[in-house]
Amino acid sequence: MKACKPNHNGAMKLATYKDGSRDGQLVVVSRDLATAHFATGIASRLQQVLDDWNFLSPQLQDLSVTLNQGKARHAFEFVPEMCASPLPRAYQWADGSAYLNHVELVRASRKADMPSHFREDPMMYQGGSDDFLGPCDDAPFASADWGIDFESEVTVVTGDVANGATPEQALEGIRLVMLANDWSLRHLVPAELAKGFGFFQCKPATAFSPVAVTPDELGDAWQGGRVHLTMESTWNGVKVGQCEAGPEMNFHFGQLIAHVCKTRRVRAGSIIGSGTVSNKDWSRGYSCIAEKRCIETIEGGEPKTPYMQFGDTIRIEMNGRDGHSVFGAIVQKVVPARRRA
Amino acid sequence: MKACKPNHNGAMKLATYKDGSRDGQLVVVSRDLATAHFATGIASRLQQVLDDWNFLSPQLQDLSVTLNQGKARHAFEFVPEMCASPLPRAYQWADGSAYLNHVELVRASRKADMPSHFREDPMMYQGGSDDFLGPCDDAPFASADWGIDFESEVTVVTGDVANGATPEQALEGIRLVMLANDWSLRHLVPAELAKGFGFFQCKPATAFSPVAVTPDELGDAWQGGRVHLTMESTWNGVKVGQCEAGPEMNFHFGQLIAHVCKTRRVRAGSIIGSGTVSNKDWSRGYSCIAEKRCIETIEGGEPKTPYMQFGDTIRIEMNGRDGHSVFGAIVQKVVPARRRA
Repeated sequence: MKACKPNHNGAMKLATYKDGSRDGQLVVVSRDLATAHFATGIASRLQQVLDDWNFLSPQLQDLSVTLNQGKARHAFEFVPEMCASPLPRAYQWADGSAYLNHVELVRASRKADMPSHFREDPMMYQGGSDDFLGPCDDAPFASADWGIDFESEVTVVTGDVANGATPEQALEGIRLVMLANDWSLRHLVPAELAKGFGFFQCKPATAFSPVAVTPDELGDAWQGGRVHLTMESTWNGVKVGQCEAGPEMNFHFGQLIAHVCKTRRVRAGSIIGSGTVSNKDWSRGYSCIAEKRCIETIEGGEPKTPYMQFGDTIRIEMNGRDGHSVFGAIVQKVVPARRRA
Repeated sequence: MKACKPNHNGAMKLATYKDGSRDGQLVVVSRDLATAHFATGIASRLQQVLDDWNFLSPQLQDLSVTLNQGKARHAFEFVPEMCASPLPRAYQWADGSAYLNHVELVRASRKADMPSHFREDPMMYQGGSDDFLGPCDDAPFASADWGIDFESEVTVVTGDVANGATPEQALEGIRLVMLANDWSLRHLVPAELAKGFGFFQCKPATAFSPVAVTPDELGDAWQGGRVHLTMESTWNGVKVGQCEAGPEMNFHFGQLIAHVCKTRRVRAGSIIGSGTVSNKDWSRGYSCIAEKRCIETIEGGEPKTPYMQFGDTIRIEMNGRDGHSVFGAIVQKVVPARRRA
């Protein structure tokens, strides 16, 4: 017999435990993030589930229900530090810039207007997806002079979406929601953009939240292809951002996916990002340091806040309406990359 | 007992047969492309081999030797039309623009100089890798007004390469060599570049050659991280390009991989592209229509050659010094994408 809660009939949380392999081991995590259970016997890797969602996800959900009822026989304590990214590597990571306030701030700080078509056509870049950082992994950089910055983002993982899909059709293809820390090296950006080929070296490996959740798991907080919750960013123990992720997301995830689908299909396991969460109300703080520096430049002519240094920490988290962490926290420390011969 | 030919002790050709699954079925192909053998019992998917190269590749090589000796018991006729891309999907597809003649032509046609740092720092963009076209698959586009163009390129597939690797270290990480048709939608380029985030919609699904070969398989033609053979491009049955891929590749593949590794690791199964093969000697023809149009613009003030239309075909191939096809041919037809509701 299948147990279902009303409005949550597709609700579940998934994570990937590190086990020394490239893709890790799939676990189902309880709603309160207290316990977990290996998905052994159903699927070993998350990509496998995304490849065959209709067959495998109901089985994972049954396990999720049992786990949430406290009846799973081999449940164990869930330890986020054991996690890789839910997808330790992926076939696609395409990141948007859907909060136009962020784009406006960046442009205003260099006295550039916002072209009107930026309101109709999302900005997106193709990110590297062969190597993601776990949610609690150190973030290694060869130089602290590169302008090391975090970016707190919401992301979705898709199933297959057809070439030419509409935003509404694309919404149907969303399987999971996660948070991301889209590490950015700000001082490498200008030279790369001047070359015209887009971001590359300035976008090193991205980290994702310990847990990926189905849209149903978000309940009413998932509306219109947006997550209506608060993104909390805590830098060196100081809460620097409490930005609303919902209302000011100018392009919803269906629109972002449809943008990708204009000239090609999107295949299962693709990760699509919102870009830095940003609000017009500056008192809500910031989800990346670059934005703080833009505000300082607009207000005082120059940036004052330095970028991250070795030893700095960043914590990115989102609480549900019940006050509990939905995805678990991304907690990372900036460290020097090991030197090579 | 392991049979080895001198200078070819790591030589083999691999392909992926379509079998209805997302990753297809790995086959070993004979040097003359006449016969093939399933790699069953060794590995079912190419990514698996790249993930565990040192253990699995010697076993595939043993099979390759047996196949080339005509002694493989279950060999069958190799049919390129049965092939998916050697990697039907990949964790990374990063494409360079290593033939600076191509960059110079494009810039000269719009009367722009070539910045000197373009000679020291490779241009690269991150491509989509969740969905590749097979070598003989039709290429579907929703509109023939998008400026449909082929791009004949050389690509390599890597193993793991460390963060901060030098070009020489990166060369050691090259596992396989393939050809690519990097489909481009030229009329979508200007608007995307103006947004500053790089190529996206203008780069739909890429196609790769039927066969991927080890550098050893290329023998003397693999030198200095470059393939010293001729790239043949045949458009609607007319040979439009016979460009030398070796001497004018300004950045070799080790340099391109090291560019990616400046701020992150590169993980097994990453595909790195050369960009359009291009020669200073215009009589050698062209490896993409855009270049022909640039030459026409420089010579006569405006482009004359139209981009591809529905029904057009493109064939991309490279012969070894023995006159035989090394990778098999990419043979594709441009077709209208099926309409969607």
